[in-house]
Amino acid sequence: MGVRTREEYIEGLRQHKPNVYMEGEKIENIVDHPAFQVGLNSAAVTFEQANHPDYRDLARVWSPLVNEEVSRWTYLMQDEQDALAKVKLNRGLNDFLCPCHYRCLTSDLLHASWAVSYEIDRNHNTSYHQNVIEIVKQAQKNDWIIGGGLVSPKGDRSKGPDEQTDPDMYLHVVKKNADGIVVRGAKAHGTAAPYTDMLCVVEFQLLPDYCVGFFTPVDAEGITLICRAPHAPTEPKDMDNPLSSRFGGHVEAMMVFDDVFVPWERVFMCGETESIVTFGSILSASHMWHKCLCRWINMDLSIGATALIADYNSVENAPHIFDALSEMAMDAEIVNACAVAAAVEGSKHESGVYYPKMSPVATGKVYAAKKLGEHRYHMQDVAGGLVGTMALEKDYRSPVVGKYLEKYYQGREGVPTEDRVRAFKLIEDLTASEFAGWYHVMCITGGSPSKTLKDMVAMEGDFEGRKERAKLAAKIEKQ
Amino acid sequence: MGVRTREEYIEGLRQHKPNVYMEGEKIENIVDHPAFQVGLNSAAVTFEQANHPDYRDLARVWSPLVNEEVSRWTYLMQDEQDALAKVKLNRGLNDFLCPCHYRCLTSDLLHASWAVSYEIDRNHNTSYHQNVIEIVKQAQKNDWIIGGGLVSPKGDRSKGPDEQTDPDMYLHVVKKNADGIVVRGAKAHGTAAPYTDMLCVVEFQLLPDYCVGFFTPVDAEGITLICRAPHAPTEPKDMDNPLSSRFGGHVEAMMVFDDVFVPWERVFMCGETESIVTFGSILSASHMWHKCLCRWINMDLSIGATALIADYNSVENAPHIFDALSEMAMDAEIVNACAVAAAVEGSKHESGVYYPKMSPVATGKVYAAKKLGEHRYHMQDVAGGLVGTMALEKDYRSPVVGKYLEKYYQGREGVPTEDRVRAFKLIEDLTASEFAGWYHVMCITGGSPSKTLKDMVAMEGDFEGRKERAKLAAKIEKQ
Amino acid sequence: MGVRTREEYIEGLRQHKPNVYMEGEKIENIVDHPAFQVGLNSAAVTFEQANHPDYRDLARVWSPLVNEEVSRWTYLMQDEQDALAKVKLNRGLNDFLCPCHYRCLTSDLLHASWAVSYEIDRNHNTSYHQNVIEIVKQAQKNDWIIGGGLVSPKGDRSKGPDEQTDPDMYLHVVKKNADGIVVRGAKAHGTAAPYTDMLCVVEFQLLPDYCVGFFTPVDAEGITLICRAPHAPTEPKDMDNPLSSRFGGHVEAMMVFDDVFVPWERVFMCGETESIVTFGSILSASHMWHKCLCRWINMDLSIGATALIADYNSVENAPHIFDALSEMAMDAEIVNACAVAAAVEGSKHESGVYYPKMSPVATGKVYAAKKLGEHRYHMQDVAGGLVGTMALEKDYRSPVVGKYLEKYYQGREGVPTEDRVRAFKLIEDLTASEFAGWYHVMCITGGSPSKTLKDMVAMEGDFEGRKERAKLAAKIEKQ
Amino acid sequence: MGVRTREEYIEGLRQHKPNVYMEGEKIENIVDHPAFQVGLNSAAVTFEQANHPDYRDLARVWSPLVNEEVSRWTYLMQDEQDALAKVKLNRGLNDFLCPCHYRCLTSDLLHASWAVSYEIDRNHNTSYHQNVIEIVKQAQKNDWIIGGGLVSPKGDRSKGPDEQTDPDMYLHVVKKNADGIVVRGAKAHGTAAPYTDMLCVVEFQLLPDYCVGFFTPVDAEGITLICRAPHAPTEPKDMDNPLSSRFGGHVEAMMVFDDVFVPWERVFMCGETESIVTFGSILSASHMWHKCLCRWINMDLSIGATALIADYNSVENAPHIFDALSEMAMDAEIVNACAVAAAVEGSKHESGVYYPKMSPVATGKVYAAKKLGEHRYHMQDVAGGLVGTMALEKDYRSPVVGKYLEKYYQGREGVPTEDRVRAFKLIEDLTASEFAGWYHVMCITGGSPSKTLKDMVAMEGDFEGRKERAKLAAKIEKQ
Repeated sequence: MGVRTREEYIEGLRQHKPNVYMEGEKIENIVDHPAFQVGLNSAAVTFEQANHPDYRDLARVWSPLVNEEVSRWTYLMQDEQDALAKVKLNRGLNDFLCPCHYRCLTSDLLHASWAVSYEIDRNHNTSYHQNVIEIVKQAQKNDWIIGGGLVSPKGDRSKGPDEQTDPDMYLHVVKKNADGIVVRGAKAHGTAAPYTDMLCVVEFQLLPDYCVGFFTPVDAEGITLICRAPHAPTEPKDMDNPLSSRFGGHVEAMMVFDDVFVPWERVFMCGETESIVTFGSILSASHMWHKCLCRWINMDLSIGATALIADYNSVENAPHIFDALSEMAMDAEIVNACAVAAAVEGSKHESGVYYPKMSPVATGKVYAAKKLGEHRYHMQDVAGGLVGTMALEKDYRSPVVGKYLEKYYQGREGVPTEDRVRAFKLIEDLTASEFAGWYHVMCITGGSPSKTLKDMVAMEGDFEGRKERAKLAAKIEKQ
Repeated sequence: MGVRTREEYIEGLRQHKPNVYMEGEKIENIVDHPAFQVGLNSAAVTFEQANHPDYRDLARVWSPLVNEEVSRWTYLMQDEQDALAKVKLNRGLNDFLCPCHYRCLTSDLLHASWAVSYEIDRNHNTSYHQNVIEIVKQAQKNDWIIGGGLVSPKGDRSKGPDEQTDPDMYLHVVKKNADGIVVRGAKAHGTAAPYTDMLCVVEFQLLPDYCVGFFTPVDAEGITLICRAPHAPTEPKDMDNPLSSRFGGHVEAMMVFDDVFVPWERVFMCGETESIVTFGSILSASHMWHKCLCRWINMDLSIGATALIADYNSVENAPHIFDALSEMAMDAEIVNACAVAAAVEGSKHESGVYYPKMSPVATGKVYAAKKLGEHRYHMQDVAGGLVGTMALEKDYRSPVVGKYLEKYYQGREGVPTEDRVRAFKLIEDLTASEFAGWYHVMCITGGSPSKTLKDMVAMEGDFEGRKERAKLAAKIEKQ
Repeated sequence: MGVRTREEYIEGLRQHKPNVYMEGEKIENIVDHPAFQVGLNSAAVTFEQANHPDYRDLARVWSPLVNEEVSRWTYLMQDEQDALAKVKLNRGLNDFLCPCHYRCLTSDLLHASWAVSYEIDRNHNTSYHQNVIEIVKQAQKNDWIIGGGLVSPKGDRSKGPDEQTDPDMYLHVVKKNADGIVVRGAKAHGTAAPYTDMLCVVEFQLLPDYCVGFFTPVDAEGITLICRAPHAPTEPKDMDNPLSSRFGGHVEAMMVFDDVFVPWERVFMCGETESIVTFGSILSASHMWHKCLCRWINMDLSIGATALIADYNSVENAPHIFDALSEMAMDAEIVNACAVAAAVEGSKHESGVYYPKMSPVATGKVYAAKKLGEHRYHMQDVAGGLVGTMALEKDYRSPVVGKYLEKYYQGREGVPTEDRVRAFKLIEDLTASEFAGWYHVMCITGGSPSKTLKDMVAMEGDFEGRKERAKLAAKIEKQ
Repeated sequence: MGVRTREEYIEGLRQHKPNVYMEGEKIENIVDHPAFQVGLNSAAVTFEQANHPDYRDLARVWSPLVNEEVSRWTYLMQDEQDALAKVKLNRGLNDFLCPCHYRCLTSDLLHASWAVSYEIDRNHNTSYHQNVIEIVKQAQKNDWIIGGGLVSPKGDRSKGPDEQTDPDMYLHVVKKNADGIVVRGAKAHGTAAPYTDMLCVVEFQLLPDYCVGFFTPVDAEGITLICRAPHAPTEPKDMDNPLSSRFGGHVEAMMVFDDVFVPWERVFMCGETESIVTFGSILSASHMWHKCLCRWINMDLSIGATALIADYNSVENAPHIFDALSEMAMDAEIVNACAVAAAVEGSKHESGVYYPKMSPVATGKVYAAKKLGEHRYHMQDVAGGLVGTMALEKDYRSPVVGKYLEKYYQGREGVPTEDRVRAFKLIEDLTASEFAGWYHVMCITGGSPSKTLKDMVAMEGDFEGRKERAKLAAKIEKQ
């Protein structure tokens, strides 16, 4: 079962009993709850790809660790060829239309925890790495989705974890004993958390109690998930929200950890503060890399939708519209190029895993975030105002007024009116729906704020080496 | 009653019986229908301003035409001082929070129809201008909101009105007799149409039958409005959608004209194709001018929301955040400057009305459209991911999980958690809600696509005069 | 003589004996020195405009102070009509081709010193204002150009004036007695200083000795000007540098003040540190306003040159070229709008002078600086590579190879090859010459670095008021 | 001699007697002429790299064709590993400070002519490919620099080659016989042509006579080069122009072909118009790839110079300056990423050569062109106005005024004034010198205008495939 089907994934979820609340109500069965369907569809996409004839070979790879074929999403990359294969695989998800499959974090977290535990063991004679090996084996054998608990609420951002009025603003260890540790705090932005197979929770502050990393089942005692339905219709809206009513984002969760016990065999970091750099940089590089590729998928679809509506409006060859399409295509090239370069210029960690280079993908992620508004501008500008004013499907189907819409929404000769209506609705879904709002947030602030990413690029920017070359050019002698 | 109250406006609407459909249902009473409340609130804002002590004087002006004090929105501007007063009045609507009051069109249409009818009469010995004078008088005396029917569906955009498979793709005159004319066709983007006091419908193509302008009550026989609820909650969402559940946009309507009769005394153009330039340019200049000012209001609020969340997050003085605020403030200066320059550099039409210059406001409108994405980027980047992941009010009020949110959503010391939650919700409302989607469409494509506006700037760009100066600089002799 | 001719200006300069060095040589007679001709031409432009029939009326204004007609450049503005007239006058300098006439500072400095001296007198019972009145009278009667000594070298920018290793890094008062003061230090960026009629030197730091303002003849004892020829040919280059060999920038000077004595009747500030805000803000607002207008002139010429070469290359109607022209025209609209808005929204100082609002012109100046690179991009992109590879005039005139150039540099039929060559040379002059380099510096850093200007916009940005409106929108109650 | 030294290259040039004119004079000996030294230095850089211990191994590669070690610049790439090695080699030229080594074209032209001749032979039973093989062998054995003659003057750009008044506006074949062909016309932009070892001249229009490709010695009878000295000082200007007086650009030439005879054994295309796509696309992809890498080098130096002056001004840690550095570093990442992605995603031609993918590098080249202005803005904004106003070396060395400059140009404590002066001069050289002007032209229009490159990206943009995915997302059924 190194590669699951969508059905096996869903069935697996039935075994968990997470403590989930939504709009003030307790949800006992998320798998069959209407508000979870869109999220489940989205999360299931990588399983579908792995079972699709076109992607089967690319999606699976032999893992010596478990001696069987596993999903590329649970596999640990060894070299740049692995990284380039991953680029292709991720890009191929454009055929599955899913704006956010969430599987990236599974990969990010396994690589980062593998490396950091190896380093800590070497420096501290601990035995965390074996814990991670066991988790990786299970993840590979069972084709897990691993959820991330990474961002604490932080309270007053001008203060450190130990300066807050309430010490729980950052998740921390409140007790340790021979069996394990007890943690308290919360993790915001728990996207998709309720329907993952395992959580990986990390706090990486420079204070020992606030430096901890562990795996935990999502239904461990003391964990409460306060959820919000996806920013997408929870009922079928085939015409009005053709994309988001199927794949429109995820359930979001605020995850509260109210004195949760974690046995030592699931811990991989606990107080070794010097290690957070390794963990953070591998996690970020890997996550930004996936962000670039997912943004490429979105750009790919945005370009397609723009070209389609231009065609249906009979203006595809207007020079300013062709120019808009070209600009969008160039942006897609840049974001892809950043991902490819990061794959080629990555590093091999001493623990054996290979990970992409940070600065190209930090750049690509910021670039994509900045371009999102521009792409939406192009899409709407090419389409026209009907993106916001078009009547809804119920009117279109109405025996009384439907005939007017059928008549007046027609576009280029030869294109059925309904197709043109659907193309407009797609653009509304991509640029002006509630889902579009959620996707915007995910692109702008998701993963990391731009400032942090820019700082990372600067850190790898070799300004001192560059100054030396400038001195050479200026004929400034060494002092 | 040259200036009405909100209540008088609403009461007035009860006298109309427009033929309105929404989601396939006929709506008999729009005034009390939940889906219309947000739109009605928005449309009522100019009445509230005119009765507010801070704005009363600025909002009212003596009209010699009716010999009484009237609203500045129905008044016809005579000179640049009138235009500068209008700039201040419009900008003052920021105190009323309304993203789109829709009153601009009343002013745009009255100025444009006044001028065009004057010109046609002079050229054709017609007597349209008196019709417009009568309409203006009524509009002033009764403080009307006039709705616009301006954009035909257009069908295949690569073809002219008479090349379409269906001749109704552009609204046109199908019959004329001594009493009046009969028109057929449709008008898309009928924002707020159901709750206006009078419609002004215009087709301005270069073919006589497709060149017509008239006023008509919205409940004239043969008019059907196929409506869509505002892209905003129709139930109170005080916390979750603090702005849009009050002022979040308008009902949109596709207006169908199924052989509608218009008596001659409401017609001001009918076949005089050479006049469409005058009508179009005054209408556009005026409308783009108002667009600039309304975008300034939105920028003003966006800057405030960004500064507020920065404050509540305790990062207001972080240099990159201060920089974002400065950039936004500079954009607001530019958009305002374009409106002011257009007011000062406007023209007096021979018919007596004064109107703003096109090129500054066409520029300002395109600039604002292009910057919208950037402002949303800044707002979310400064706020952080909770914009998209924060739980809803029902959870916040829940006796079970509310305490967790109260604890974990706290920010800067001294700021009540609820205030911070509300600030996040405002930013979500402004950048990531369905309303935000609608507002995006209105900014990008509303009024005119950017290409058209750029062409207008180029038209006023005096490229020939500029070439002459270049020749002088290049020492090229006149041939 | 309230308005001089070019000749009178030049003749006046012969009366001064400034201590001028250039490339290590002492220059005794600058008026006839080849390296000064381009600068003199540029500085003389406002005199030519004032004597030109098209501008005569606009350029002159009655001054009650001296009871005669004076130049608008020495006149003190009283209200927004004066400011709007100045906008027109400055914009009209596009007919005189001069990229930098330098006369702006005369106006900036007179307004600022007038206001600050008035304020200091009122607060300190000093009698500076009378000194300024006398200077203004002389400036008006004699139609002076006043040079500015504003920017000290600053040494280590992380330290204040009194923390520097060398106390002279900022100009300061080293002695005071009954007759006057003695100052020491230097002023960088003394553009055009050698050929001005009077200098106005100011240091505005928060330490009494480093807070001083005075007028001084440029040939006062102790002043040394270390000059640099304009970044332009000092020989006639009619074809190769058609613009810059006539009006290409100014002589730049480092001005050294080696214990220079200034009598009290030329001092207007000396130690009253609280006044630097008034001086600085009027000076900056006025200077940025002029910067906007001069950048508009440059944009005007750049647009003309681009349209001209497009015409000569026979590609003027290619959509992407028309688009470039439209974009440039929109930028020119924005910069002009900022200047107009600042004129209309300015303030009247209690001393009687009117000055423009800071934030629109600070915005406009930064906008123009950021767009300069884009305009050069458009100009070259439209023209093509010959901008950088075209042979020189000597080859074009050569009896041996000239025929080849005449043949192969031809463009659109009907355009003489030489005209096309000249158009290319103009674009080279504007974008790729040494003069273009100097102009770039003047646009980017001249006046003020962008950061300072952005801070000024933020200062006027009313963030607190804007937050209040955001609270209203978010339904946050006042605490 | 598969790899030459700088001296061997220069010595080789003495064997040629090209017909060179400059400023109307015939130049007999270019090798020792002052106006050619900067260009020769620049062209010699790849030889220096190949003999430098740090780059020796990377710069040389075994060529089976000649059975010896040859320069990577004459070597034909076989796969993506070759391409990645070339990326590193080119990027390493940053250590040699040269803004344009010109060697790229050697590689571009050899790959493109190799492929196109192979294709033509297969389709037409010609024997061009053997001619190219011989040229490649000689180029490899003798480590040639090959110059390009690619761009005809074009005359009236709205007309084709055969519609021009003068048929020579595009280079063409005027005679063919058993021995060879005779060509007439001209090639603009002959950068560095006088000091190359061989020219490769191509016309690729769709008319048989205007479709020709051949190699020719630069001193063949009938070729006249009308040259222009580099836009850089031809005298040593160590301090004032520290970079450009050493490596500042190239001699530019208009190359006239006045009935030049080319023997068949140097021809590789003659009338086979369908082949120009292959030639053009390999040439362009390869050339844009090198352009990206050279722009990366320039960005690298610009970042260094900016960081250096920030350091010397004592403002390196000011947030807005750090931000500028980060932005520049991100741009460098993007341009590099485009080159790396093109190397990895390239294609193997049936003739055996491997070449990079077009769309990433076309994108990267346009991106770099658009960013050039912004980088210059940052450099000057960080440095300050002294970039344009600083006195010259002669003043600095002057016994009279030098002491003032030494005193007043000091910056951060511990930095010798002269070093700071040199850093400013470097920034002037990079942003505001005549050389900076030339470099600007080369970046903006060099290689290809942006419009052409955008069209190429659109051509590879798979808009049809993207529309299909949009249909899937919109639930539009296949018709």
